[in-house]
Amino acid sequence: MDSLLEQISKPIASDLEDFQNEFNSSLDSDVNIINTIVKYIVKKKGKRFRPRLCLLSAKICGDINKETHITASLLEILHVATLIHDDVVDDSDMRRGWPSVSRVWKNKLSILIGDYLFSKALTNMARTNSIEAVKILADLASRLSQGEILQIEQVVNKTIDEESYFRMISDKTASLFSASCKLGAITSTSDQIKIKALSSFGEHLGLAFQIKDDLFDILGSISDLGKPSGYDLKKNMLTLPLIHIINKKSSIEKKIFKIKIKLLSRTNSFKSIKSIIINEGGIDYTEKKLQEISLLAEKELEVFDESDSKSALIKSLKFNLERKN
Amino acid sequence: MDSLLEQISKPIASDLEDFQNEFNSSLDSDVNIINTIVKYIVKKKGKRFRPRLCLLSAKICGDINKETHITASLLEILHVATLIHDDVVDDSDMRRGWPSVSRVWKNKLSILIGDYLFSKALTNMARTNSIEAVKILADLASRLSQGEILQIEQVVNKTIDEESYFRMISDKTASLFSASCKLGAITSTSDQIKIKALSSFGEHLGLAFQIKDDLFDILGSISDLGKPSGYDLKKNMLTLPLIHIINKKSSIEKKIFKIKIKLLSRTNSFKSIKSIIINEGGIDYTEKKLQEISLLAEKELEVFDESDSKSALIKSLKFNLERKN
Repeated sequence: MDSLLEQISKPIASDLEDFQNEFNSSLDSDVNIINTIVKYIVKKKGKRFRPRLCLLSAKICGDINKETHITASLLEILHVATLIHDDVVDDSDMRRGWPSVSRVWKNKLSILIGDYLFSKALTNMARTNSIEAVKILADLASRLSQGEILQIEQVVNKTIDEESYFRMISDKTASLFSASCKLGAITSTSDQIKIKALSSFGEHLGLAFQIKDDLFDILGSISDLGKPSGYDLKKNMLTLPLIHIINKKSSIEKKIFKIKIKLLSRTNSFKSIKSIIINEGGIDYTEKKLQEISLLAEKELEVFDESDSKSALIKSLKFNLERKN
Repeated sequence: MDSLLEQISKPIASDLEDFQNEFNSSLDSDVNIINTIVKYIVKKKGKRFRPRLCLLSAKICGDINKETHITASLLEILHVATLIHDDVVDDSDMRRGWPSVSRVWKNKLSILIGDYLFSKALTNMARTNSIEAVKILADLASRLSQGEILQIEQVVNKTIDEESYFRMISDKTASLFSASCKLGAITSTSDQIKIKALSSFGEHLGLAFQIKDDLFDILGSISDLGKPSGYDLKKNMLTLPLIHIINKKSSIEKKIFKIKIKLLSRTNSFKSIKSIIINEGGIDYTEKKLQEISLLAEKELEVFDESDSKSALIKSLKFNLERKN
């Protein structure tokens, strides 16, 4: 798996270093406690998937420049900010295999550190002097919070159709992938066709990324993920495999099924739930969707000539399909 | 008191209506739960002190325009966003005499609604197409969260000198007053002397506003404030009257005094604490500081000719000195 990620990184190897330096230096603060927490966060490097997409999107359209590094860095800062707030919202104890910020420093500080990181993302966006980029960031921030709110609304209502599901994951996950590609592209081109293609590529890749996470929740294991499988199930969050099999049923069957799942998840009988979802075709359907959406993403790249960056973007789709965490 | 606020509003009466319309319409969402919470927030109008400062600052420099209304609105949105996060951070049950958002909708939703409002403030800032304004907003957002983090750090360290106190309240409170004046001014002038004078006026007014709140914590009553007096004391937050009398003492006296205050606040003996603070000169010193800082604020306005707006800004200082909540 690592070697696929290495292949994706090849066209942007030195830029990833520039990104990392930019990321570290732009989070410096003269407040001790901020530095301590930021250092803790920076230590646990994630996949840095969004900065990679930003850099590759700039490269496929032209030349990577200082603005691209700044943009890649602020996207990762924004991503970390949302993770920290999500961990408070979801009461998560673990993140990237380490105790979450909210577990170590309590919720209060986590909320404020999230706010602080968000302000730093904005500060860096303003440094590029592009009001167009600021507008994209504003829209992104709005969709990210709206997506999380939609998810809570759906948990409360305990019902969701596939259309609402896609709207919710588009806001909460795909928006950041799409903006990463779009913001990267506008640092190196003003060709609207290319910018639109990359934005749409990112959107589809983001949807595929979230659907893959949904599959993990049912098929994954704790050692791979750093969060137990069945986690979303337990929090009453509806994932695509479940939504699909629920919506195939008549309304009476739906009610009975929901009670069954609720009882099983209360008694931690995830193995039984897993069997039901597999037997009723929830996994097959979701895997089919995942392939379809990945193909749509690849199709968006047809406007580009062959290049290392194009191959790397296509490999990002493959990376998502094959990733184990 | 109300009549003084009416006098302040006179030069901007119709603009306050435009501001209110802009404020209401820019928070519209097609997510039900967002609309429900926003309606709840909008119902409990605050003093709208920051939008007033923004409008008056624009007017004293030239003509109020559409950008001024947008800016006044986003400042109030940002203010509300910080209040919602603060209520989560401080475990506050009440806000503006009503149950806080975090009490009604729980912390999870409050964090996300705060994030959503912050993104809307940014969206509106971008609508003015001024990258300079975006930079001011980014710096402001960073100082607001940093100020709250500094406050937590000081509670943990249980010690603070007057200089650190002023830095903390400058970040957490005065920054928003200062930015309100500055952002208002740049919508109607590019005269740097005037912009700087208003920015500094706002900074001093903001410091005075926070110091007045500190006095409320010791002298106020629950019916006026909607939050009990002694609240900050109980949360171990150091206010100026206390910092002054603590820092006059020798290090042994300090230790004894802190234990005494801690025991008294645990047993809810606020009356005894109040007497100690008054007798040792904490209130006198703080009131003197409040007057000094208000005078400094007024001095900043000397660069402006006499006008209704200038009188209204000066009356804002008086309003703060006399306000009862």
